[in-house]
Amino acid sequence: MPLIEYVSRIHFDFGAINQLSAELELLAITRPLLVTDKGIASAGILDRVLESASPLIPVVHDRTAGDPTEELLQECLESWKAHDCNGVIAAGGGSVLDLAKAISLLASHGGSIQDYEVNSGGSSRIGRVHPHIAIPTAAGTGAEVGRACVMTLKGGSKCVCVSLKMVANTVICDPELTQSLSPRMTAATGIDALSHGIEALVSNVINPPAAAIAADCVSRCARWLPHATHDGSDLRARWNMMMAALEGGLCLQKSLGSAHALATPLGELGIHHGTLIGVLLPHVLRYNREAAPDAFESIGQLVSLPASATAADWVEQLVSDIGLPGRLSELGISQGQLQAIAKRAMGVHLTATNPRRPQPEDYLKILEKAW
Amino acid sequence: MPLIEYVSRIHFDFGAINQLSAELELLAITRPLLVTDKGIASAGILDRVLESASPLIPVVHDRTAGDPTEELLQECLESWKAHDCNGVIAAGGGSVLDLAKAISLLASHGGSIQDYEVNSGGSSRIGRVHPHIAIPTAAGTGAEVGRACVMTLKGGSKCVCVSLKMVANTVICDPELTQSLSPRMTAATGIDALSHGIEALVSNVINPPAAAIAADCVSRCARWLPHATHDGSDLRARWNMMMAALEGGLCLQKSLGSAHALATPLGELGIHHGTLIGVLLPHVLRYNREAAPDAFESIGQLVSLPASATAADWVEQLVSDIGLPGRLSELGISQGQLQAIAKRAMGVHLTATNPRRPQPEDYLKILEKAW
Repeated sequence: MPLIEYVSRIHFDFGAINQLSAELELLAITRPLLVTDKGIASAGILDRVLESASPLIPVVHDRTAGDPTEELLQECLESWKAHDCNGVIAAGGGSVLDLAKAISLLASHGGSIQDYEVNSGGSSRIGRVHPHIAIPTAAGTGAEVGRACVMTLKGGSKCVCVSLKMVANTVICDPELTQSLSPRMTAATGIDALSHGIEALVSNVINPPAAAIAADCVSRCARWLPHATHDGSDLRARWNMMMAALEGGLCLQKSLGSAHALATPLGELGIHHGTLIGVLLPHVLRYNREAAPDAFESIGQLVSLPASATAADWVEQLVSDIGLPGRLSELGISQGQLQAIAKRAMGVHLTATNPRRPQPEDYLKILEKAW
Repeated sequence: MPLIEYVSRIHFDFGAINQLSAELELLAITRPLLVTDKGIASAGILDRVLESASPLIPVVHDRTAGDPTEELLQECLESWKAHDCNGVIAAGGGSVLDLAKAISLLASHGGSIQDYEVNSGGSSRIGRVHPHIAIPTAAGTGAEVGRACVMTLKGGSKCVCVSLKMVANTVICDPELTQSLSPRMTAATGIDALSHGIEALVSNVINPPAAAIAADCVSRCARWLPHATHDGSDLRARWNMMMAALEGGLCLQKSLGSAHALATPLGELGIHHGTLIGVLLPHVLRYNREAAPDAFESIGQLVSLPASATAADWVEQLVSDIGLPGRLSELGISQGQLQAIAKRAMGVHLTATNPRRPQPEDYLKILEKAW
């Protein structure tokens, strides 16, 4: 079985979940807190995880729903204390994986999540945290190898914490766990993985190893995302999309660009991240094309684009083929909201690594075309 | 300046050496032991490193020569103790970089290097080691991001220690430092970098992110190694070869194959590793070709091979073009030694990750063709 080590130890293959008990032992976790959500529980995945944790019996917290909140984090920390836990297992999508990072951090460091906010110098206050194991159940965010977590504070604003110390000690990627994902969620999370590869390739940060991984992510998504969406039982497609998502996470150190910058304020309106990205990406690619000709040529080769077609057209067609919405207006955004969103996206740090430096009016134009 | 983080923090660019003083501070190294060799000192690189360490004045040990030995390690540990050091800086090629790992290990753990030998379960005895900074001065081994060190014991045998804990905390890759490397050493170390990319791509281990990095290593070497060899002042070629060597080190977790297995017993005869690899690789590729058709097709595309040519022929031609010897007989090996070498190479762990499983007679045939 492939064992991939960058910062985390990554077990990757069908049946990888069977490594859970050995990995808990290796990390000396004897009383794990398992965070997950109701969907994972009802899909039978929670049972599979619990079985693999045996002989340990984790304390289960399955109330994650949507973006993780400070209240939810508080609840989990109370469970942690009540059961004297000493490590976290996270089984779920990006929200659950983020929550696990925040629990490991606060259970070891105390204080509140704002004390570690990246923009207030919080990263330097993060030392060694409690061990945690990440088990992604979708193929999208790549949060299983990420170093950041985002929490929604009581007032509604977002708190972002970033540290290599928070990266999961062990990642278990078992494509079997993604088999029950609906076509819609397969498509929406898969587009997110693809967008990480594309935006990383196009970004203005120089990092050839990350670019190489991003390129492999893009060609894997181009080949396998339609299969995984249209036939969820296609195991080869599930394996490859989970690998693409992992690669999308690994290449994030090359940063991202304007599609993710624009998706940040839009995401705060409660719209699914991958779905938003599918709508925004073609328009951002049209805007960026002249600014990164080499990257766009690579993308053309990676997805076997005919000379007459553009990467933007190809993404737009793919989004439509896999049944995702193509316009912001379909997602409940009103035209009147666009100006404020354009303005807020300017302040997102990913705007600075987009290959072309946008002005607020550029963002407004992109949003209007996407509307 | 690109900041690349996998396990190590990697500063990579012209002028990266200027980060040394800030990195020493970040790692809280106040009394560094600097290990290097006389060649680095006479090329003026040592002065450049010392200048960048200012205001700190490292204790310098510049007596590394060839493969590092247990005696040399002992000397360094005595310097460490005498000056109450608390961190290591290594400036040099693979030997110096390996030595630094062994110093960090023994200065923090005590005992002798054999206590940590990988085949005797020594890796599990390796905990947190003293911080160290790796500064490669050649573009070849990729040891700057490696997790292994090889020491020659008093009896002449080799002791290999492996642990992620020994990976350099910070790597400073400054292509300027490779500018004074002779054409012969540029060629011999560059072929080693290329061989890491090729053997990793061809190996039977599944690791797509490492394969993607290996592919980028191969295409970079194909394009830039002749330039770096024939015109050492070509800064773009130096940048790209240093990046290729780094990528060659990063992809090693996909393992290597028979060229490196055969080079292990041959290397113990005191022959330069990269030079050996240049001789062996074409013959190993001919032997492997049928066993890994997809990898060979990728290599063909990466180096723009015409349909009629093979990867083996291409490597053979490159080795000749950059002025390296093409036969083992030119390296002082006698025909009578080949059988024993074939037998010993069978026991090297890299034989098991070669895509085709060799028998001792296969290794003998390869060695005879290379002789």
